[in-house]
Order: sequence, then C-alpha cells, then structure tokens
Amino acid sequence: MPYALCSMLYAYSLLMEEKINLSHGSGFKATREIIENIIKKYLGNEVLSPLADSAVVSLSDKEIAFTTDSYTVNPLFFKGSDIGKLAVYGTVNDLSVSGARPLFLSLGIIVEDGFSMKDFEKIIRSVKEAKAQSGVEIVCGDFKVVEKGKADKIFINTAGIGLIQKKVGTNLIEPGDAVIVNGFLGDHEISILLSRREFDFEADIKSDCAPLNKAIGKLIKECKTLKFMRDLTRGGLGVALNEVVLDLNNYGFRIIQTSLPVREPVKSICDLLGYDPLFLANEGKFMLVVSDGEKDKAVDILKKEGFRYSAAIGSVVKDNPRKVIVKTSIGGERILDYPYAGQLPRIC
Amino acid sequence: MPYALCSMLYAYSLLMEEKINLSHGSGFKATREIIENIIKKYLGNEVLSPLADSAVVSLSDKEIAFTTDSYTVNPLFFKGSDIGKLAVYGTVNDLSVSGARPLFLSLGIIVEDGFSMKDFEKIIRSVKEAKAQSGVEIVCGDFKVVEKGKADKIFINTAGIGLIQKKVGTNLIEPGDAVIVNGFLGDHEISILLSRREFDFEADIKSDCAPLNKAIGKLIKECKTLKFMRDLTRGGLGVALNEVVLDLNNYGFRIIQTSLPVREPVKSICDLLGYDPLFLANEGKFMLVVSDGEKDKAVDILKKEGFRYSAAIGSVVKDNPRKVIVKTSIGGERILDYPYAGQLPRIC
Repeated sequence: MPYALCSMLYAYSLLMEEKINLSHGSGFKATREIIENIIKKYLGNEVLSPLADSAVVSLSDKEIAFTTDSYTVNPLFFKGSDIGKLAVYGTVNDLSVSGARPLFLSLGIIVEDGFSMKDFEKIIRSVKEAKAQSGVEIVCGDFKVVEKGKADKIFINTAGIGLIQKKVGTNLIEPGDAVIVNGFLGDHEISILLSRREFDFEADIKSDCAPLNKAIGKLIKECKTLKFMRDLTRGGLGVALNEVVLDLNNYGFRIIQTSLPVREPVKSICDLLGYDPLFLANEGKFMLVVSDGEKDKAVDILKKEGFRYSAAIGSVVKDNPRKVIVKTSIGGERILDYPYAGQLPRIC
Repeated sequence: MPYALCSMLYAYSLLMEEKINLSHGSGFKATREIIENIIKKYLGNEVLSPLADSAVVSLSDKEIAFTTDSYTVNPLFFKGSDIGKLAVYGTVNDLSVSGARPLFLSLGIIVEDGFSMKDFEKIIRSVKEAKAQSGVEIVCGDFKVVEKGKADKIFINTAGIGLIQKKVGTNLIEPGDAVIVNGFLGDHEISILLSRREFDFEADIKSDCAPLNKAIGKLIKECKTLKFMRDLTRGGLGVALNEVVLDLNNYGFRIIQTSLPVREPVKSICDLLGYDPLFLANEGKFMLVVSDGEKDKAVDILKKEGFRYSAAIGSVVKDNPRKVIVKTSIGGERILDYPYAGQLPRIC
C-alpha cells in the first residue's frame, strides 16, 4: 500500500477510535450505556447487575449492604458543604436507601502533588464531623499522591458496609403506590454552579448535603409498606425515575409537576436558563415508594426528622408501563425523557 | 502595616504554606507521617489506627476483613500485568494477608475525558479474568469521568470484604520466630520502570502481580503457628519490616542478606543504579512469620503453590528491639533504615 494512503488510513482509524468522554460520566443514559456495554458485559452477576445503590450480599447468615463511590467534586468547598462531608454522607446514604444501617466506611484518597496541607487537614476534619454526625466509623484507608496535572486536586473514594434492616426493592412496587421525595430538588447542583460562578448572578442557595440514615431508620421502623428507596444524586429525580421504571415491566410512574418541591430561586434559575429541576443533582435527597395508605405517615415522619418540605409527588400507574409521565402545571401530560447526558458542566 | 510589607508577608506566608508532595505518597516514612499527623489525628479508632492491610470488624457474630486501595499505576499495561489485574489482586491480597478469605470487591473507576474505549474494555476484561482467577465477585461499582488533564488516564479503587479464617497479628510474634518471603523481590517495580523506559537498557523482567489467597488458604489450614502476614507493595519488604517492628516493643528483626531471593537482572540493575532491592515494590509477594519449627513446612507449602523461590530470610530477635538489622553478605550488621521517601519515580 502506498505510504500516503497507509498513513491516511491510520489517521482515519485514530479519528474513528471510540473515546470515553464527559457524557459517559454524566450519570445520564450515556453512563448507563458504558456500564451495560462494558462493565456489566464482563463483570455482570446477580448482585452487581441490578445496579442498585448498594450490593446486598450474604455473609454466612447475615445480609449486608456494600457500596462504593468516588467523589470528584469541583470546587472542593462550596456553600453548605465540602468534598469531605460529601464522601461520607454519599456512601452513608447509598447504604441507607438500600434498607441498611451504615456501619463501616473505607477512605481512599488520591491527591495531586502540591495540594495545600491546610486544605487537606480541613477536608479530613470535615470527614470526622460527618462520620460523627452519621454514626459510622472509618475503618480502613489508602493514600496516594500523583504528579501535578494528573488529578483534579483531590479525589476521595469511600466504600461502605451496612447491615440490612429491611428488604426493599423494585419487585415490591405495585400500582397505586405513592412516590415521595424528602424536600427541595436541585439545591446541590445549583449551589455548586454558583460557587463556580458559572452564572452571571448570585443567589443564596446551599447544598442539601446531609446524612439520611436517621430519617430512613425511622421510616423502616414505622412504615410497614416501605417498598423502595433511591437517592437522587447525579441526574437527579429524573434519572432515578427513569432507571427504576426500567425494572417495572408492567407499571409506570405518574408525577405531578405542581407537587414537586423546588425552591423559588432554583426555579427562577431553571426558568431563565432552560434547565429542568428534575434532572439537577442532590446530595441529601431520596425518593421512596410506600403504599398509598401510608403516604401521609411517611411524609410526616420525614418532616419530623427535619425534612420539612417532604412531599408526595406522584404514584405508580398501570397505564404507560416502563414510562415516566409528568402531569404538567397546565394539565397536560408529557413523557419524561432519559437524556443521553446532562446539559450542565460536570460537578462530580 | 505598610502595604508593601503586608504583601511581602502575604507572599512569604504563601511560600511557607505546607504542600503535599510526591514523597507523601511514596509509601515510605513521609506517608506514615501524613497518615499519623492528619488522618489518624482526626479519624483514629481502634480498628483504623493499627494501619493494617485490612480492618477487622465484627458484624453481629461474624468477623470480617475490610480494605481499600486506589490504583494509579503508570503505565496502565506492563510486562506481566496491567492496572485491572493489579486492582483485583492488590485487594484480594490485602484481605488474604489479614487472615481472611476474600469474597466481595467493589470497583470505583475515575477516567480522564478522551480515554480510549478499547483500552477501557481491555482493562475491564482483565478485571474479569483476575476476579475469576482469585474467586471473588465484583458486587458494586461507580464510574466517573473528569476533564482532560484532571486524571492520569484512569484510576481504579477497589474495596474488599472477606471472612476472617484465622486471627493473625503482630501481638502473636515472639523471639525465635522465622520470617519468610514467597519469592523474588522487586520484579514488579523494575518491570514497571523498564516499561516506562526509565533506564537506558532493557531486561526481561515481568511484574510478579498474582493473587495470594489460594496459597495463604493452604498456610492457614496447615501451619498452626502462622502468626502474621503482610504484603510487600509500596516500599517493599524494607518498609513492611520497619512498619511491623514498630509494633514489637521488645523485639526486632534480623534479616540475612544472602537469604533474600532477588533475581539476577534485578540485582544487577540495583547494583548499577544504587537501589536497595529491599525497598522495591512487589505485587504478589508477602512476608509471613511462623514459629521456627514450622519454617520449613511453610516454605514447602508456598513452593508447592507455585512460589518456587520462597525462602526463610531471617528471624525475630530479642536484641535490637524495634530495629531491623540486616546481616550483610560480608558478615557485618547494619540497621535497615526507614527512608522518608522512595528514591524511584512514583509507579503507583
């Protein structure tokens, strides 16, 4: 083959080589695709494959929940929280929504050469406060440093172990069940973007970063029909509903737009910039499914536990199987799509 | 204060601000210092503080081991292994040397925007092979993508859970006990440096990356006096001995230089460049302490399990408490120091 053609073909093959890009990490459909097409393809098993918030495994006669998350938030410190608290509460919440009582966390740290020792200490102090606040222990860890330009300041991975208190799962969900969220949606993502000055204006919005284990402990104790929970992090309620509905072969969700708790300034920012608050990331929010009969009780428990803006936002329906329908404020209905990637810059 | 003086002082304070640097991640004394001074200062508890390979925690009546490690190796593919296998075997080995049977692993991935999808698939395929090889399951995971220049291609964190089969610990170590290693030291670090073309010459050295759980399972079953094990990763045997000896208030280690299994080309490279093979990183090597009476049996078991160059390399001694003494090839003795940082570029 002539050399020129050969190198043209080589250049073309390079151009065509598939690359991982930010959309694969967005938490939206692109993330699901890479997980399905590569990770599950090779590593799938009955525990990993449901892609739940935690794995539930048996250890002799005990059922435990096991989960992991890497925290890559930028900036590291923002209104209402920081990467240290996020790394603890995020994993505590993943265990909690799986029906487990969080017990032990690991702490894996990757730091960029030249990172401020003072900021590092501030982050570790924050981890300490968060673990005390949520009643877990950090029992093992790892610490690595990479060259300048090889990490975004600091990455924290936590894995967590909890003891299953209550079996929850999409298999328990039935038509007529109520869907509840524990307060304002989108505060976390908007507060991060404000901290990064991505907008031309300011607003007083704090991250909602908080541990959920105490409130969920109460729900488990008092709501007999607690069927399912999921936290609303990357991709927000919109992605969570779209993921869960894939498991509900014969049912769908109908969400009432006017019931969604969204703070006024968040709503204004969304209206202004064309974002849907349903797809904004949260760090202290979860959705839960209970029977319609226990809907008010569950909302009351959440309110008593400090989540004052908890609300029933919709229900499980027989029509529209495997679809998420939103009843709009003007009375119409629309299918809530499952976007390929988020529209906003990466925040985690 | 005059403005000029004020800004000079500010500039000085910036200059003086302590920064984290690569030595803090070297696995040598600097790593111990930052862990002691910051991480343990805030997060210390009786499980975390011994800084063992895994945490041992009770879950109701069961004792489990829990560990985590972030893998940041560069290059990702090298003679004998790759980051995927490393991430599985590293955590399997941390559980194994803690006396546990490894069962479940988590898999947290951080990828840089633009990373080749083909290489990603190759890595995940390698994870699959390694998990099959070592008989563990990946049960939960997390996947993040960060911007170009914000990560060194790919970082993998694994955390692992195992069931304790045998209680081992430095508290069981007594004078007269034998110290054994399961084969050639330093192959991993030298093979990585060769892959990176850090030297002006080539040599056929493969990483020793391997799972240890099967061999350790046999040791646990057959050696009644198995007292302690530690894997010899970052900082190698030299750092492992120096760390362990800090726990032995009244005893020390005496290591016989001529007994140390080091492959000829590794020895030559070390002689040429002034490295001590004792401080080279390994990925499939561990040290163990057994009573002198079971020394030969333990070495035999390891050889039968494929670790043909296993050898007894020294013993626990009453003289020189809290010190590691090396009996040199010319008959003298030297104290093996605990360097502040490694002399070689970061490989993990």
